Amino acid sequence: MLLWQWDELILNALQEDMGPGDITTQLLIPEGEKGKGVIMAKEPGVIAGLPVAARVFSLLDPRVCFSPLCQEGQGVEAGTILAQVGGPLRAILAGERVALNFLQHLSGIATRTSRMIQLIKGYPVRLLDTRKTTPGLRYLEKYAVRVGGGANHRLGLFDGILIKDNHIAAVGSVAEAVRRARAGAPPFLKIEVEVKNLEELQEALEAGADIIMLDNMSLEEMAQAVQMARGRALLEASGGITEENIEKVAATGVDFISLGALTHSVKALDIALYIEEVG
Amino acid sequence: MLLWQWDELILNALQEDMGPGDITTQLLIPEGEKGKGVIMAKEPGVIAGLPVAARVFSLLDPRVCFSPLCQEGQGVEAGTILAQVGGPLRAILAGERVALNFLQHLSGIATRTSRMIQLIKGYPVRLLDTRKTTPGLRYLEKYAVRVGGGANHRLGLFDGILIKDNHIAAVGSVAEAVRRARAGAPPFLKIEVEVKNLEELQEALEAGADIIMLDNMSLEEMAQAVQMARGRALLEASGGITEENIEKVAATGVDFISLGALTHSVKALDIALYIEEVG
Amino acid sequence: MLLWQWDELILNALQEDMGPGDITTQLLIPEGEKGKGVIMAKEPGVIAGLPVAARVFSLLDPRVCFSPLCQEGQGVEAGTILAQVGGPLRAILAGERVALNFLQHLSGIATRTSRMIQLIKGYPVRLLDTRKTTPGLRYLEKYAVRVGGGANHRLGLFDGILIKDNHIAAVGSVAEAVRRARAGAPPFLKIEVEVKNLEELQEALEAGADIIMLDNMSLEEMAQAVQMARGRALLEASGGITEENIEKVAATGVDFISLGALTHSVKALDIALYIEEVG
Amino acid sequence: MLLWQWDELILNALQEDMGPGDITTQLLIPEGEKGKGVIMAKEPGVIAGLPVAARVFSLLDPRVCFSPLCQEGQGVEAGTILAQVGGPLRAILAGERVALNFLQHLSGIATRTSRMIQLIKGYPVRLLDTRKTTPGLRYLEKYAVRVGGGANHRLGLFDGILIKDNHIAAVGSVAEAVRRARAGAPPFLKIEVEVKNLEELQEALEAGADIIMLDNMSLEEMAQAVQMARGRALLEASGGITEENIEKVAATGVDFISLGALTHSVKALDIALYIEEVG
Amino acid sequence: MLLWQWDELILNALQEDMGPGDITTQLLIPEGEKGKGVIMAKEPGVIAGLPVAARVFSLLDPRVCFSPLCQEGQGVEAGTILAQVGGPLRAILAGERVALNFLQHLSGIATRTSRMIQLIKGYPVRLLDTRKTTPGLRYLEKYAVRVGGGANHRLGLFDGILIKDNHIAAVGSVAEAVRRARAGAPPFLKIEVEVKNLEELQEALEAGADIIMLDNMSLEEMAQAVQMARGRALLEASGGITEENIEKVAATGVDFISLGALTHSVKALDIALYIEEVG
Amino acid sequence: MLLWQWDELILNALQEDMGPGDITTQLLIPEGEKGKGVIMAKEPGVIAGLPVAARVFSLLDPRVCFSPLCQEGQGVEAGTILAQVGGPLRAILAGERVALNFLQHLSGIATRTSRMIQLIKGYPVRLLDTRKTTPGLRYLEKYAVRVGGGANHRLGLFDGILIKDNHIAAVGSVAEAVRRARAGAPPFLKIEVEVKNLEELQEALEAGADIIMLDNMSLEEMAQAVQMARGRALLEASGGITEENIEKVAATGVDFISLGALTHSVKALDIALYIEEVG
Repeated sequence: MLLWQWDELILNALQEDMGPGDITTQLLIPEGEKGKGVIMAKEPGVIAGLPVAARVFSLLDPRVCFSPLCQEGQGVEAGTILAQVGGPLRAILAGERVALNFLQHLSGIATRTSRMIQLIKGYPVRLLDTRKTTPGLRYLEKYAVRVGGGANHRLGLFDGILIKDNHIAAVGSVAEAVRRARAGAPPFLKIEVEVKNLEELQEALEAGADIIMLDNMSLEEMAQAVQMARGRALLEASGGITEENIEKVAATGVDFISLGALTHSVKALDIALYIEEVG
Repeated sequence: MLLWQWDELILNALQEDMGPGDITTQLLIPEGEKGKGVIMAKEPGVIAGLPVAARVFSLLDPRVCFSPLCQEGQGVEAGTILAQVGGPLRAILAGERVALNFLQHLSGIATRTSRMIQLIKGYPVRLLDTRKTTPGLRYLEKYAVRVGGGANHRLGLFDGILIKDNHIAAVGSVAEAVRRARAGAPPFLKIEVEVKNLEELQEALEAGADIIMLDNMSLEEMAQAVQMARGRALLEASGGITEENIEKVAATGVDFISLGALTHSVKALDIALYIEEVG
Repeated sequence: MLLWQWDELILNALQEDMGPGDITTQLLIPEGEKGKGVIMAKEPGVIAGLPVAARVFSLLDPRVCFSPLCQEGQGVEAGTILAQVGGPLRAILAGERVALNFLQHLSGIATRTSRMIQLIKGYPVRLLDTRKTTPGLRYLEKYAVRVGGGANHRLGLFDGILIKDNHIAAVGSVAEAVRRARAGAPPFLKIEVEVKNLEELQEALEAGADIIMLDNMSLEEMAQAVQMARGRALLEASGGITEENIEKVAATGVDFISLGALTHSVKALDIALYIEEVG
Repeated sequence: MLLWQWDELILNALQEDMGPGDITTQLLIPEGEKGKGVIMAKEPGVIAGLPVAARVFSLLDPRVCFSPLCQEGQGVEAGTILAQVGGPLRAILAGERVALNFLQHLSGIATRTSRMIQLIKGYPVRLLDTRKTTPGLRYLEKYAVRVGGGANHRLGLFDGILIKDNHIAAVGSVAEAVRRARAGAPPFLKIEVEVKNLEELQEALEAGADIIMLDNMSLEEMAQAVQMARGRALLEASGGITEENIEKVAATGVDFISLGALTHSVKALDIALYIEEVG
Repeated sequence: MLLWQWDELILNALQEDMGPGDITTQLLIPEGEKGKGVIMAKEPGVIAGLPVAARVFSLLDPRVCFSPLCQEGQGVEAGTILAQVGGPLRAILAGERVALNFLQHLSGIATRTSRMIQLIKGYPVRLLDTRKTTPGLRYLEKYAVRVGGGANHRLGLFDGILIKDNHIAAVGSVAEAVRRARAGAPPFLKIEVEVKNLEELQEALEAGADIIMLDNMSLEEMAQAVQMARGRALLEASGGITEENIEKVAATGVDFISLGALTHSVKALDIALYIEEVG
Repeated sequence: MLLWQWDELILNALQEDMGPGDITTQLLIPEGEKGKGVIMAKEPGVIAGLPVAARVFSLLDPRVCFSPLCQEGQGVEAGTILAQVGGPLRAILAGERVALNFLQHLSGIATRTSRMIQLIKGYPVRLLDTRKTTPGLRYLEKYAVRVGGGANHRLGLFDGILIKDNHIAAVGSVAEAVRRARAGAPPFLKIEVEVKNLEELQEALEAGADIIMLDNMSLEEMAQAVQMARGRALLEASGGITEENIEKVAATGVDFISLGALTHSVKALDIALYIEEVG
């Protein structure tokens, strides 16, 4: 993670929160006052985003010292101190909310990803995210998925070929869609196609797709799909997957499971900052 | 909502998804091909973000025609068609995900806000959001809260005075913090202070705070606080509020209830785009 | 003053002056040549903007050393040396004009503000600026007003409610305008309304305005307004206020005096840079 | 004046004033309400900036119709209506201050420039501005100088060679400075040098300077300088020039008079917007 | 080619040429004067970039009418009129150079690409570009390669896996490098590796690389490589390929030929604009 | 060369190459691994752009140490090591291509410029570039021309007056065009005009042009032009100048020779980076 790539994002977030300045802090805290605080998890989870939180403070005021006390991807209990923050008190108080907003959101993603991964460990399947991400935060959210143990599906429309239902509707058939893609695809990209039943799967296999996404299939269909595809294409299960059924999906033998909810419906991890020393 | 204010956000989201181009669509769909599609709610909810979705397509290609079929803030059933989209098929397919990502996120916020509002209707209390928002999306998320029937607390550190626990820890006491704020506050701003018990409430009342936030108090404490403050300051309940207890909180007589989860833990509303006609 | 907030402004100013490069200096001064200079006030005044001037040089070339010899807000005589500048001569000469342009403009504002403050000291009234500022420089100009001893009115349309003559014309009456504002105002903002005579003042008081701006009233009217409002609303005198009459306005007992000319008609303080040592 | 070149400046000014939105107007004026207003000069002057004011409104809301009723550079009396503005009332009220801030500032410059020009008409001399401009507004201010009848000195360090006192101090002598400049100057640029007495003038003439700036010379020295330079170089009078002495300076026979105060100490022209019709 | 993606590039190019304005044209051509001109090829070639040239003028002044008279990718003779341009003469003259600079550069690329393609037609091989492009213009240059009939290798480091000599040097061996890539590669990407002799080719084939780049091999080695790889991996010839030897390389049976000189050493196609009508 | 002026250009180039990240390097090289490499010229030439290459790495990762081993403008043999690069291996590999792309392009320009200069040394003539540059890279390319020993013609439309064929076509005659320019030109700019034959040259001389560009004239015409202009104007030869005829052009006695091909048809100098040490 090269931090300068997030700087614009972080500066935008600071700008939207601070605007022309933090009135309350300017009224209450004398310039030059120093302080120390801790960042603490208030519920158990997997931590992601500490380097982003650190960068929030260092962009705000390079004199703030941010010392992480745990690793990216580490599972923590409620009450764990994640980092210490020391330096000019005005900057610590002004940056608190933005730093926590990043940390809570990314740790929320890592925590959910990690929990899903636990449910399927033991199976030779990889958990993938999707493009159903929060606008503007995609690469950071996909980073949090990796921190939580998941793998990334394509980052956007530009780095992978995925023929979806609407493409097939537009082109007429799975076979024709795969044929067009194969004819013009850049040499270094595989071709993935979404199918909604086993007939389409057969068509995709015959057309030479490299990866086939099984959209909202039943467990029985998935199992049958695995039999049909064996050795000819990789299979990705997608749609309707929850904590309740993910292990059964893994047990069908698919190669990948993708899950939009990893990023489109994030439950923030509860994390707070407490000032512990002043002056 | 002046749309140009969101343009940078929308262009960023398009940029992060499209990067240097939508490979799949370029391979499959001939330039110049036209199509029509519908945007449909797949579960019940309150819709927010249609103007943003429209803008996604018009920034991508001004020839796309986006016709909303429902109002911002309207409650819809599963299966309701929210909008029709027609024009160059490449642009519709390239913009689909970004438009839906905005729409699902904002409608998720409006839906939850609306549900909370239903639970407290009949009480003279207003539901407020917080600064616990997704980095970069705050103003848009606060717009969705309004669409869902809620009101906005301050937008950031720059447009309201709110003395929080860490300020009090730094300054030494509620009374001293309120005193400093009153001494220097701009004429047009009220002063709000967070208190964690009734002693601090008493201190805040005596110091002349205009609004007092009751942090994580029990229902009994809140009721007592209402008795103590009557006529002297407005009260805001905050912390630990859920669908289960919000009505009881409202019944205590507080003036405002604020809820971070409206924006920090959004469950996206399930919305999809279906191509229905090509050529 | 968090300096990074001004960096874009400073870089724009450098860009507009330097464009693709300082031809004269490149022709005359060998790369690597070093020098020292002083920045001197050529007339008496109150200094504001030294950190901005320092930042001009450090953005241009971090090797320039800028040592301020007076404080922000300090009153100085003609001939006072405000700062020393040392380092690469090319950078000192290239940055001279931009640094001085900021310093002269901001010191001009601080000087005028300070002079007005002197005229009303002894009265319990605060001197406010307005939104009549130079496009693009508002926050910096409002900073200079504070340095000069004044207070800031709202920064923009977003952080305070001020119902002006055109709003009242559009809405129909002072009373209706205040009523609409009270109905929807965010909890943390007071409501200010502009009135042009005592009838409107009465209407505003009855409607419950928190602050009332007396627009272009005579001294007699202001005095009467103070009698009418006592205890019910704060009063701001505005319009037609000059060095000649400001003390009399203060003597009427208004709470605030606001003055557009602090920022819209700035007389630059004469400040120059002299190279004193080369090599 | 290609307007898109000012768009960034105008959007910055709108952003700094509107931030996340115009609260007052949103509370008072229903969306969709229409209105009409006039922009009126409240004191006599020369108008500059109408296209900028028009652009403020059209960037804010393209439905606003701005009809200028006078020309750029036209002299007007107090009470003259400069333009009509019609369309969505919210946009008119939100854009009012920014549009007026530009118009007042630029008309202030054009007015002063025009007044100075009147004082020297009849003499074959041109009035020039300097680089003592408001940071960020230079090109627009120089445009206003042209509107007022003046001519522009170089725009910045990049488009003209001007050897100033500090360059001479660094290089050692006028002669050496001119020599270095002549040795390397791009073919298409003349060489100007500042001199502070007649000895330096002689040196500059001998060194072959194309233009010579007479810095803070007395009227007698200037007259003598004109005798010395005749036919060999153009002369520019600079420093200490006021409304009182400018005609006498012109009478010495110099080719140019430059005046920093045209742009560094602007007195805004008083201009207001009045809403005249609603609905 | 979605034009808005190039707008920033085009505006930068206009900005760097026009800066604060086109002095010559402002001095010579009255505002409002109209004119017509033609854009003509002065040597034979393949045209690319007409939409970009059109956009230059429309960004400069939307009233300019640009009518292309040939297609992107069309081969033309010297003297062919490529487009007509009509409208405000100032804008046509101000935009001329920037429009031509884009058109000459992109047509230079398309022309060379097309000539290389002619030399290998008849062989089942595709001509690819590389990442050796002009900084800032990569995607536009890769567009011109496609217009000239070539195909694009990966756009950047982000959309394809290519293990190069320095990676192998760092990792230790071709086999280990391919192994690491296969272990973590996203599902949708093939793995390409560069080899410099047949031993490394063998290693790459055994490690399961999908595509193998033959770096600077002799024609004999390439032919042998084709025998070794048949059916197991695709082969790309790279390094030292010229107009003289490209057909022989194609004849070896490799699948791709890549050529840095398509973009790193562009000879501009000679194209000019002639004003033909004024007023 | 103030490096911050190129930072936006460099960041754009990094962004276009790296996008959301260097997949290959992330897969192969462990975070924290260190390495060293050398940058080597693979053919003889004149080096330009080392500070830019250094800046690529330092913007990517400030821990990379870039040590130049030759000077800007130095002529080198094939095999010369130009610089050493050490530090985090991921950053070195990720920045390699962008750094080389700048270095190869700029050194290509310096090399060609230097070769042309060699051909005319001994003649009192200066070699100039033109505005036929790569969009977005003009100032950097003009820097490379200077490094190669050439001089810069105007940077853009804003810093010099050059009346070209299309201006003359629009205005009607050389004489009228020069007259208009002289009437309004800023004091510090000379006036240059392009002429296509000796009649126009005579007209230009009589009209008082300061510099006259001889467009595509024969050697005989140029020699005659030199006779006609002697002492009255400077002459610039332009159009159709090649390595074959440049010395003859210089021998005619013109003051300047300008050459578009210095920048519009650059042959990159072959330069490579080799990793030599890991860990």
